[in-house]
Amino acid sequence: MTQPGHTLSNDLKFSGEELDRRREYDRSRPLERDESRLLISSDKVEGTQVYSADGEKIGSIDHLMIGKRSGRVEYAVMSFGGFLGMGESYHPLPWDTLDYDTDKDGYVVDIDKNRLKEAPSYTRDETPDYNRGYGENVYAYYGVMY
Amino acid sequence: MTQPGHTLSNDLKFSGEELDRRREYDRSRPLERDESRLLISSDKVEGTQVYSADGEKIGSIDHLMIGKRSGRVEYAVMSFGGFLGMGESYHPLPWDTLDYDTDKDGYVVDIDKNRLKEAPSYTRDETPDYNRGYGENVYAYYGVMY
Repeated sequence: MTQPGHTLSNDLKFSGEELDRRREYDRSRPLERDESRLLISSDKVEGTQVYSADGEKIGSIDHLMIGKRSGRVEYAVMSFGGFLGMGESYHPLPWDTLDYDTDKDGYVVDIDKNRLKEAPSYTRDETPDYNRGYGENVYAYYGVMY
Repeated sequence: MTQPGHTLSNDLKFSGEELDRRREYDRSRPLERDESRLLISSDKVEGTQVYSADGEKIGSIDHLMIGKRSGRVEYAVMSFGGFLGMGESYHPLPWDTLDYDTDKDGYVVDIDKNRLKEAPSYTRDETPDYNRGYGENVYAYYGVMY
């Protein structure tokens, strides 16, 4: 978690007002799935479809990347495109970008499809070095704080 | 997260010294799996075997329960016993109780097998009401803070 006013690696800086706005937005977000439950099972998240803000189906959640010590889900990794695993790419999405839409039975990420497709990603044969710098870049791309 | 000295629902109370000891223990814990990586994939955690402190295989991790808003893994749910799903029971384990043992290629939970078997659990047809009180009870059973 960055501190208020902390400068991210790509020079994104959040003002106090922006931080308040983001916190308010976070509090107002609809809960995913069954709204009466505070927790969700990993096996419900995995396989769920992901849509861009303009409603296009982009991919589905393949797996989650979890901090070993913190127990925090740092990314929900979306698999995107490809056929039988060929050409498939993986987009790590910050957990907070996922808003569950009951009508779509999927997550909606609040950026348009081209920006979502061009987001930080890797292929089947690569694995990102999930370090702090990588996290700050990915999170900044989606406009959330690492 | 409870505060230092906070009284848990079953009257477990941690002194300042005990909290320091637990923090020190936490810092000294070996990282799970590939020690060079800070994150672990949910699909590596799921299916991993779980052993008691005395080395007996008790079950394996079935799924994770994640806070929808916090993104925190509150429990790694171990499935235990049963045959083809009949009589199977589920034990929610606090994330911090899982220590990966490279020799066993599994997690070791630091309590003996009888205490692990008798831990809070539920059957296939039930679902716990994963609220704060439940969490405090389960965490206190394993001696960790909710």
